[in-house]
Amino acid sequence: MTAVAASMPTAGADDGLLYEQVAARVGRLIAEGAFGPGERVPSVRRLSREMRVSVSTVVEAYRRLENQGRIEARPQSGYYVRKLSPSAARRPASGDGALTPDWPLSAPLPPAALGSPEMALRLMRDSSDPRLLQLGAAIPNPELLPLERLHRTLARVIRESPTESAAYDIPPGYAPLRAQIAKRLVSSGVTLGPDEIVTTCGAHEAIYLCLRAVCRPGDLVAVESPFFYGILHMIEGLGLRTVEIPAHPRDGISLEALTLALERHPGEIKACLVISNYNNPLGSRVPEDRKKALVDMLEAANVPLIEDDLYGDLTHEEERPVVAKKFDRTGNVLLCSSFSKCLAPGYRVGWVAPGRWRAQVERLKMTTNVGTPTPNQWAVAEYLADGGYDRHLRRIRREYARRTRAMGRAVRALFPAGTRVSDPLGGYVLWVQMPESVDALALYEQALKIGVTIAPGPLFSAHPAKLSHCARLNAAFWSPRAEEALEGLGRLCERPISRGGAARPD
Amino acid sequence: MTAVAASMPTAGADDGLLYEQVAARVGRLIAEGAFGPGERVPSVRRLSREMRVSVSTVVEAYRRLENQGRIEARPQSGYYVRKLSPSAARRPASGDGALTPDWPLSAPLPPAALGSPEMALRLMRDSSDPRLLQLGAAIPNPELLPLERLHRTLARVIRESPTESAAYDIPPGYAPLRAQIAKRLVSSGVTLGPDEIVTTCGAHEAIYLCLRAVCRPGDLVAVESPFFYGILHMIEGLGLRTVEIPAHPRDGISLEALTLALERHPGEIKACLVISNYNNPLGSRVPEDRKKALVDMLEAANVPLIEDDLYGDLTHEEERPVVAKKFDRTGNVLLCSSFSKCLAPGYRVGWVAPGRWRAQVERLKMTTNVGTPTPNQWAVAEYLADGGYDRHLRRIRREYARRTRAMGRAVRALFPAGTRVSDPLGGYVLWVQMPESVDALALYEQALKIGVTIAPGPLFSAHPAKLSHCARLNAAFWSPRAEEALEGLGRLCERPISRGGAARPD
Repeated sequence: MTAVAASMPTAGADDGLLYEQVAARVGRLIAEGAFGPGERVPSVRRLSREMRVSVSTVVEAYRRLENQGRIEARPQSGYYVRKLSPSAARRPASGDGALTPDWPLSAPLPPAALGSPEMALRLMRDSSDPRLLQLGAAIPNPELLPLERLHRTLARVIRESPTESAAYDIPPGYAPLRAQIAKRLVSSGVTLGPDEIVTTCGAHEAIYLCLRAVCRPGDLVAVESPFFYGILHMIEGLGLRTVEIPAHPRDGISLEALTLALERHPGEIKACLVISNYNNPLGSRVPEDRKKALVDMLEAANVPLIEDDLYGDLTHEEERPVVAKKFDRTGNVLLCSSFSKCLAPGYRVGWVAPGRWRAQVERLKMTTNVGTPTPNQWAVAEYLADGGYDRHLRRIRREYARRTRAMGRAVRALFPAGTRVSDPLGGYVLWVQMPESVDALALYEQALKIGVTIAPGPLFSAHPAKLSHCARLNAAFWSPRAEEALEGLGRLCERPISRGGAARPD
Repeated sequence: MTAVAASMPTAGADDGLLYEQVAARVGRLIAEGAFGPGERVPSVRRLSREMRVSVSTVVEAYRRLENQGRIEARPQSGYYVRKLSPSAARRPASGDGALTPDWPLSAPLPPAALGSPEMALRLMRDSSDPRLLQLGAAIPNPELLPLERLHRTLARVIRESPTESAAYDIPPGYAPLRAQIAKRLVSSGVTLGPDEIVTTCGAHEAIYLCLRAVCRPGDLVAVESPFFYGILHMIEGLGLRTVEIPAHPRDGISLEALTLALERHPGEIKACLVISNYNNPLGSRVPEDRKKALVDMLEAANVPLIEDDLYGDLTHEEERPVVAKKFDRTGNVLLCSSFSKCLAPGYRVGWVAPGRWRAQVERLKMTTNVGTPTPNQWAVAEYLADGGYDRHLRRIRREYARRTRAMGRAVRALFPAGTRVSDPLGGYVLWVQMPESVDALALYEQALKIGVTIAPGPLFSAHPAKLSHCARLNAAFWSPRAEEALEGLGRLCERPISRGGAARPD
């Protein structure tokens, strides 16, 4: 217990309440591994004696840690460090080539400015270039979208209701669509009324409105790292700063690092933004107990959780995972998603369940662009009501699972020794850690020359150096041509590539 | 000349450059009417002597006033106060009942906080209530939209290009649509390439992106007064403040008051927002020479002009008026518009020609919602290319002109003596100044009870008291039923209405 007592301030120090200091100290020891998962922490009486604070101060401190989901009380026995599902135990390791994080998971990264958005723009522009093999931007494969049926539905609703389907639709949005979304949310573990949902121009706009609702310029936003570059640029564009929280390729955001970040930046972090299921780019899925712990911890810290569930419907598992919002008892979670990955990106139909920020989000939506396009909402609502969506999802889940696994195997086989690849349980992107000698930005330029676009790792963080040898690959377009392209990319990786562009001669 | 000399600071005073002080002083005298339009201002030599400043300082000051469009040089003769087309001369006055401003045009209003957005939200909600006669929100009459043809076009493009029309479309937006917009801009006096246009979710979003591109929270935005409440709330939602510039019902924004505002808030006004043609709510159209003066003045002051031309296509005149952007030589004008009033509001297809802020606007568009919905853009582009738009416009221009005039006549006949009504040359809204005893907010509540929604004047300003007896009426739904409704409204106006709701017994 010396560790606990050593650096404790004397009672009465005035930087924060005493019980908060005690909780912070014990929390840090848990984060640093001094007390492992399942281990008993010192008894209240003992800690009170060793730290020379009152028993009620320790009780208050432990209650706080319990609220944060970091320790749990066991009747007649004391407090124990909460066991969070360890990633290794959940699934057999994929053996050689499985992705393990090569960044420390225990500490947040300091806020830093993002680089130019130019590369992100190039990737988006690449994505509509029909000459390129699309392993870059995370666009869905149009062959796996139910476009014929969706378009037919759109044609029908505008024919049958020409006037109403062309009128302004104002926030919260088209009621039958909100009813369908509410109905489908049950499978995500969430029971909400249609009135608790606001429709948006895609999940992107949903997140944008949430950030505007809960943050002011200058505020800090905690995000997983690595994270989708589009949202990183959105955050910076809003005059906000990010504090990146390392994520595990399997379990997602590190709760330990998030706790430290909340302690390091007291009162400054105004939102935490997490893609809870099949995160982009890692493919991580936050386990259910960690989702609950995340919700509890942020609720206790009075930091809203903006949850993006864009890929949840694209599970490769038996069942669709629940969302963190399931554990929200106070309206502190703002859940965002869209139909861009499963129905049609160009329709721009998304939604948000903004919890207790509903009024603000509705108002911001109206002042941004009045409302979400009407015929698009009508078509999606009718499509969902027709009942074909679940069958469609079953089909594309199987297909994306197959493609993602096949592409992962190909990368392991065709890329240089030492390459590690994620093994996501949903979605369709792979995260590839190549040997440190590979410069992913140079590889991007080389890849373009052989007709392939990839997403270089450095885009996914304001600390790009740590990801200089990483890339995200889109497995949605897996095909014999893609296999050949990977062979070519693998060869490029074998040769040191200078940033100037040309590979050095062997 | 004593007036000029009297309050001049001594040479060398350090609050601003000396020539700027001289220009400001002379400008104020012009604004206050000491030198009327067409009158000669003092010669350079004389002013130099009276103000005890150098000749070159006066030359510089006069050059500044000339750049601002406030004086003009006449060779061999000196400088004269520029004549701006006086409103009365342009068109015969409509006689009794014609709208004359009952607010001072010469001075800007001090920045003030807007009231709650609740009433604006109610108006928008009213607008989709089929039981109400729509004299409130400025929605177009769906009977005057070419919905059948537009919808057919949409159905065709998604059938013929199912994949491409459903894909993400990124800024600057769908190229064929931008080409059509560029082509049509010629009739507004503007020659731009398609690459100088960015598509948006309506003109509302276009203005939103422009404000984000040129302003930072805390900045001042000069807007006409009265002004469309939706944009006023947008400005406030962005953390900006407005300085309202009185507008004339015929000629629009008062350049004199704008000049004073720029002087009163030096360096603080970061944008000027004007609906240059058939402004909402007054229906004013800025005359061409004033458009040029406005552009020159703002260019000289280094304040971007955000020009909204939403109603320009709905002219009642022989020809479509030009836009202020016509006179933009430096990219300082950001021109916004949409197809919401002439084609289909629910499609949410608008655009902006952002001048020298193109890169910023494109980036902000992408971080807001990735892009404008794709099938919607395709449909509008194809519709415009088909060539039926001009015929459609000719038809609805005639119809809106007829309805607007008829409704104006009815208001003059049916409302209490002393009521004055605008006589717009385009668009479809009327501004009604009732006797001061009428409380427009109470009238709104009373009107709902007889199945009519109107837009109460106080919504249109952060200084609502001056507009407490005013209302905007939408003439797009003019019909025998509307005529009856006006009769009812007229009767309500005759009786003093208490804000509580119930009209007092006679």
